[in-house]
Amino acid sequence: MQRGTNLGRLGDFNQAVIFESIRRAAEGISRVELAESTGLSPQTISNVVRRLLDEGLVREDRTVVSGPGKPRTVLELEADRLLSLGIHVDPGMVSVVMLDLRGDVVVSKRVDEPSLEDPERTIEAMAAAVEELVEASGRPRQRILGVGVVAPGPMDRERGFLAAPPLLDGWNHVEIVEPLRRRLDMDVLLEKDTIAAAIAELWKGPDHGRDNFLFMYIGAGIGAGIVVNGEVLRGVSNNAGEVGHFSAGMEFVEDGAEPCEECGRLDCLAVAFSFTRLAGSARRRGIDLPEELDATVAGRAAGMNRLVELALAGNEDAEALIGGGARMVAQVAIRLANALDVDKVIFGGPLWSALEGRHLGAVAEVINAGFVARDLHGVKVVSSDLGHLVGAIGGACAVMDAVLSPKASALLLH
Amino acid sequence: MQRGTNLGRLGDFNQAVIFESIRRAAEGISRVELAESTGLSPQTISNVVRRLLDEGLVREDRTVVSGPGKPRTVLELEADRLLSLGIHVDPGMVSVVMLDLRGDVVVSKRVDEPSLEDPERTIEAMAAAVEELVEASGRPRQRILGVGVVAPGPMDRERGFLAAPPLLDGWNHVEIVEPLRRRLDMDVLLEKDTIAAAIAELWKGPDHGRDNFLFMYIGAGIGAGIVVNGEVLRGVSNNAGEVGHFSAGMEFVEDGAEPCEECGRLDCLAVAFSFTRLAGSARRRGIDLPEELDATVAGRAAGMNRLVELALAGNEDAEALIGGGARMVAQVAIRLANALDVDKVIFGGPLWSALEGRHLGAVAEVINAGFVARDLHGVKVVSSDLGHLVGAIGGACAVMDAVLSPKASALLLH
Repeated sequence: MQRGTNLGRLGDFNQAVIFESIRRAAEGISRVELAESTGLSPQTISNVVRRLLDEGLVREDRTVVSGPGKPRTVLELEADRLLSLGIHVDPGMVSVVMLDLRGDVVVSKRVDEPSLEDPERTIEAMAAAVEELVEASGRPRQRILGVGVVAPGPMDRERGFLAAPPLLDGWNHVEIVEPLRRRLDMDVLLEKDTIAAAIAELWKGPDHGRDNFLFMYIGAGIGAGIVVNGEVLRGVSNNAGEVGHFSAGMEFVEDGAEPCEECGRLDCLAVAFSFTRLAGSARRRGIDLPEELDATVAGRAAGMNRLVELALAGNEDAEALIGGGARMVAQVAIRLANALDVDKVIFGGPLWSALEGRHLGAVAEVINAGFVARDLHGVKVVSSDLGHLVGAIGGACAVMDAVLSPKASALLLH
Repeated sequence: MQRGTNLGRLGDFNQAVIFESIRRAAEGISRVELAESTGLSPQTISNVVRRLLDEGLVREDRTVVSGPGKPRTVLELEADRLLSLGIHVDPGMVSVVMLDLRGDVVVSKRVDEPSLEDPERTIEAMAAAVEELVEASGRPRQRILGVGVVAPGPMDRERGFLAAPPLLDGWNHVEIVEPLRRRLDMDVLLEKDTIAAAIAELWKGPDHGRDNFLFMYIGAGIGAGIVVNGEVLRGVSNNAGEVGHFSAGMEFVEDGAEPCEECGRLDCLAVAFSFTRLAGSARRRGIDLPEELDATVAGRAAGMNRLVELALAGNEDAEALIGGGARMVAQVAIRLANALDVDKVIFGGPLWSALEGRHLGAVAEVINAGFVARDLHGVKVVSSDLGHLVGAIGGACAVMDAVLSPKASALLLH
């Protein structure tokens, strides 16, 4: 069934476009510049700007002199007018952030030693952390748009729970959104880590416009945020980005390795870049990693961090294993880049942010060498600026993105 | 940079939505039904319908009685009002079709033994075939919107040539669009086979609405047409759909197999499902396939068809090899389905159309077993109805799609 559009949809969309342009202009932007950059008429600009001024989302009280000509009055974002919160539930950690409209972190907090095996206590701890953060920020509660909870998939975003997440054993079908909403009396949404990372990159990263890119998220799990024409690809159930069973390449598999229990392959990314597999290789090379790390989700995440620390401290075997992991992810990235014909791949996530300096060059080389349409265009490979908090930041951005971002797809009548 | 939209864009989009709704209504559709299905106001429907009637694209002269109530007058497509042509240049064959607005084949033709190693002669033969087809159709030339040429990628769609296509050796940077345009005095566009197949499925297949699906194209090459929210994903250079170097699975690799020259893997789809690899296996099983088939692109394509014929004739070894190929493609489909979170995979293309009956069930089982979000939704696996002409049909559909289909992305100001 085909759906049309109408003036109301058009108005909402243009307002979002104009707001986004002002939001992105660090030095302010004049009405004339807005008309040029958006392609909209001065009348439309004027109507929308009046609404944005009335709502206190922008101000227009600064005059800028640049060159000869008349000084111009610029519109600027009232970044503190609206705020949002993000919580990242990762096997390796739970972190919470508050962002302003620009995407800047107002306050952040790491919940120490969450009992991830006990979802109820974790949810309790999340709610307490949010309350502390709001308190610490000194911001009025009514400015907070909502809370975005980010977790590994698969998940039922609409109903607010995780569905058989391979990295969070006890969380299958445990409600997250509803208990948090009750405790906090705030709007709460759930978002998959890879999708949240891509939203964060769009909202807070450099202006990607209508770009097409992959965000290779490397944390306790590994996934791909996919952006098509400047919008995040969600998939039919908001679970896009699952690449765990792509082949990393048999060259990364040592003799005697166990195949993946799920897909049966020896070299799928989920098993080849797992702590269990890497720890086996590390121990054979004489690296001391206590066996008890293997037993729990939190232990495996801690063990992976331990390997990264060793690599950063100069342990060559650890460095080789972690570098191999980065190249495995590159093998997956290149296949997705070919399938989707993107010209940019962004690496990020908690693990990557410790590694980037050492492996970006090698990874970029692998990707460009294997890109099938390389005669037509290259693939820019970069590190995300968002650091290890990208998940939590993505949750907070998802809240604002849902309300404020212009989306061509939202132009259609429901 | 963010771009807004305006009334002109909105009008064009709604016109396309209304036309598409009438085009799809095999039994006709009334104005009241149109307003319901599109969500548009009766005034908008009335304005657009007047334009469509004026242009002769629809008619409104039939009254339908259904149930009690007043008989309703229905709008119906004038399918013959506009036509388009599609040419599929495949290593296995060159085929040409003429379609009407409904997507029905008016006439079609297969160019016998095209000298694919000689692009100039092939282009000459394509132009001649188009002229013959127009003549045979008896339709006035001015009704023809244009010609869509379909070929394996990678290609430079904008400039109208193929760029290092692995399956068409002599065609690197040979201009196709411009010489055809000159000879035929028609609009000509170039489209990648996987993208054309997905457009054909959207235009001529069942109403996929705003669906997300993969079209696994199995011909001389294998690729994936990707549809997101009812629109084909093109990628930044119109080369999306390249999956040749995804791993088919080591279980399909026999001892002594040669790795892929491009990616180095033993089990990438391009090498594992190549005629060269399959012919080796077939000969070891005593199947007679002349060695000279291996030497040329056309020979390898003919050899693959020979294997399919043997399988269909009941040769169990050939059947096992071809069935293995179908399962290889399923292995790729499942990974893409997970990455993109689609709920439908459509198999099609020249080779598949000979095979479908025998392998659809097995392929559907493999895909659903490996789908990561299976707790949330299944993946419907079906065969395309478009048959072996899907490439040529896709070329013709691409011409009409470019002019007539509603696309949310086209709402943005340029």
